[in-house]
Amino acid sequence: LADVVDDPIFSAIGFLNEIMTRYPDAISFAPGAPYLDGLDRAVLSDALDAFLKHSCEVEGLSPTAAWKRIIEYGPSKGIVNSLLARSLRDDYGIQATADDVVVTVGAQEAFLLILRCLFNPAKDQLAYVVPCFPGIRGAAAFLGINTVAIPENPAGPDLGVLREACATARAAGQRIAALYVAPDFSNPSGTIMSARARAELLELAAEEELLLLEDSTYGFSASEVGSVPPSLKARDTGGMVVQIGTLSKLCFPGARVGFVVAEQMARSATGGARRLAESLATLKNMTTVNTSPLAQAVAAGLLLRAGGSLAVRGMIQNGHYVRSRAALLDALDRHLPDAAELGISWTRPTGGFFLVVDAPIVLDHAALAACATEYGVLWTPMSDFYPDGGGSRSLRLSYSYLTQTQIDEGATRLARFLRTRLLASPTTEGTR
Amino acid sequence: LADVVDDPIFSAIGFLNEIMTRYPDAISFAPGAPYLDGLDRAVLSDALDAFLKHSCEVEGLSPTAAWKRIIEYGPSKGIVNSLLARSLRDDYGIQATADDVVVTVGAQEAFLLILRCLFNPAKDQLAYVVPCFPGIRGAAAFLGINTVAIPENPAGPDLGVLREACATARAAGQRIAALYVAPDFSNPSGTIMSARARAELLELAAEEELLLLEDSTYGFSASEVGSVPPSLKARDTGGMVVQIGTLSKLCFPGARVGFVVAEQMARSATGGARRLAESLATLKNMTTVNTSPLAQAVAAGLLLRAGGSLAVRGMIQNGHYVRSRAALLDALDRHLPDAAELGISWTRPTGGFFLVVDAPIVLDHAALAACATEYGVLWTPMSDFYPDGGGSRSLRLSYSYLTQTQIDEGATRLARFLRTRLLASPTTEGTR
Repeated sequence: LADVVDDPIFSAIGFLNEIMTRYPDAISFAPGAPYLDGLDRAVLSDALDAFLKHSCEVEGLSPTAAWKRIIEYGPSKGIVNSLLARSLRDDYGIQATADDVVVTVGAQEAFLLILRCLFNPAKDQLAYVVPCFPGIRGAAAFLGINTVAIPENPAGPDLGVLREACATARAAGQRIAALYVAPDFSNPSGTIMSARARAELLELAAEEELLLLEDSTYGFSASEVGSVPPSLKARDTGGMVVQIGTLSKLCFPGARVGFVVAEQMARSATGGARRLAESLATLKNMTTVNTSPLAQAVAAGLLLRAGGSLAVRGMIQNGHYVRSRAALLDALDRHLPDAAELGISWTRPTGGFFLVVDAPIVLDHAALAACATEYGVLWTPMSDFYPDGGGSRSLRLSYSYLTQTQIDEGATRLARFLRTRLLASPTTEGTR
Repeated sequence: LADVVDDPIFSAIGFLNEIMTRYPDAISFAPGAPYLDGLDRAVLSDALDAFLKHSCEVEGLSPTAAWKRIIEYGPSKGIVNSLLARSLRDDYGIQATADDVVVTVGAQEAFLLILRCLFNPAKDQLAYVVPCFPGIRGAAAFLGINTVAIPENPAGPDLGVLREACATARAAGQRIAALYVAPDFSNPSGTIMSARARAELLELAAEEELLLLEDSTYGFSASEVGSVPPSLKARDTGGMVVQIGTLSKLCFPGARVGFVVAEQMARSATGGARRLAESLATLKNMTTVNTSPLAQAVAAGLLLRAGGSLAVRGMIQNGHYVRSRAALLDALDRHLPDAAELGISWTRPTGGFFLVVDAPIVLDHAALAACATEYGVLWTPMSDFYPDGGGSRSLRLSYSYLTQTQIDEGATRLARFLRTRLLASPTTEGTR
């Protein structure tokens, strides 16, 4: 058999999710997994109760119909759409109705559907902000769509480079059809886009007829309440934004429930206009037919127990992340008091799951393997998030699902690894 | 926005699954949905217990690890692979190990992954047997893969046409890379491929270097025990068969759990050989990352309660289908005793979920709408299963999920509809 799959990006997400099983005894700062302590069987069972009750009392289904909806085939667009739309409206000022929402098997399926629906690989390119979560690049590679990397400034994507890329594509008879961006504590850099940068990006999008694919995954996880500016989608008056969300972090990853907000009317090649959400739901019949309604029900039940609110659920979950972030920053300060002399520095994120450490040594997969074996601590090479090179002397630490004790012990081990490597390495900061 | 999705096939599966909601009071012979009475909440809860117990007692996980596996991110290849492999070996003589199996979000995701992994759309074509389940054609259309329709004879695909199609493709510098075939009571025709036809097809596959994509969905549903010949995969000695299965009918559709058996070693374009199952699992990171482990656990728990056996679970479920099939055949005989004079005939399936009725009138979507509105009964136009025309005077009846009372009432209504239409129609049998 000739196996035509050969893009290394296809392996990247799998690596992130599976590395822990290779070093089960290591403390793992690797995967961006949510903290799930307390989410036991009784809680999930209660969530299912909540959804069934909601189905009957709010949606008016009979108990039999409510149960059947969970075990049978269902609409490809999903069964928790109105719940999600209500929360997006009430919590985040996004003017969405149930018809504008499609439930997907995680955000990943949403990426694939949006790109397949809107891109003609012969002429449409996808721009994305680097460093970048590999899922979106992977979806583009799956579909043979060319991509353009836009570097990230401290407050958001470099709009000058983006504008230039649009012009370059146009000059070549192509177009940049969309930009993928995660304005809220992006994975992996943890950057938050300022309100001003958001306004400027929306302006540019209107001028360049550029669709913005806004990944809202980490919006709930700010250290300070009210510090996250309104989302691109909430400010979107011209239909230039498609928002992608997930319940993997807010509820639990094992549900595999994500969603898209796409109220735009899209022109079909065969004439007529229809809602983009409807086109995406139709196309979903070719990928997964529908998202497990059992999984949708359990995840949505957790939301219902938080008053049906994504924001309230986020606040309940967020306490852990705020404490973990502070604990990691504190641990690094304590275990690497001489960081400046060593040429080591790290970000001080105000939200998200991630912190980035820079050091004047190569921090690649070989270094990771050595660190895992010899020091018992895992992290992710930042180079995994740069498709065209970059990040070779940086690593990403996920502090999201560890306890504070693990974080402290992990930071001790990491400090030991970095210090030993630095002393053994001929590389100096000057060669970075 | 310009929406590039314009292939009518994308709407076909959605139509099948959603038509019932448009005519909630009609008796629906439309969707191929399984019979789920008795599958209540206690049964699913007990299934989850069974899987957690198995995780600990057989797989040696701690109770905490067993629970975490269900709610966290997991391996893209799945968590119930060894269970499935054992049953495929013990029940069906398929020499599969856990490493050969990938769990997918229904059979549909399996189609998409296999085609993306093995096909180069510039030169590889997919053959499929018509009439054909739209999902496989849809996956091909999603990926821009050209298809070739191979007509079905009473005992299986027309091998003469298939051989000719292979030669034609080769002469044009292309190749037919695979044939999609459902040997056991295929959807929609209900045909079962004879043992001899299976042997001949395997021989042709070896000669033509043609991969066989074997859909095993309905293998469990024979009226007579032991009447289904061994699967193509069980007879496959040369690695020419990839089998696709689903737990949607055996367990419940709301789980969205399917699987692929692909032990073949495949050559990668970047060199090296790896197991096709591994390539598919890697690629799955770009579509859905992993299949909801909660859904996998509940579906697999139902198998465990049947001794971990797909075949035993199939036998438990099959009683209903055997009775329904007999009930529908009996009802048609009683309500259309003059069928021969009217030019109406129907198949007498020995397994599967479907029966096909032929009549000398047009049975298209307009006829279906009229029948639903005026007679309160739904079915599926067979033309939906013929991409290049055909089936315009045939309809498919799914008898799978109705009660015997509904089947009898539905057959009465259908007979009334056919009789009235025939009398009103100027068409005679001669013009068919």
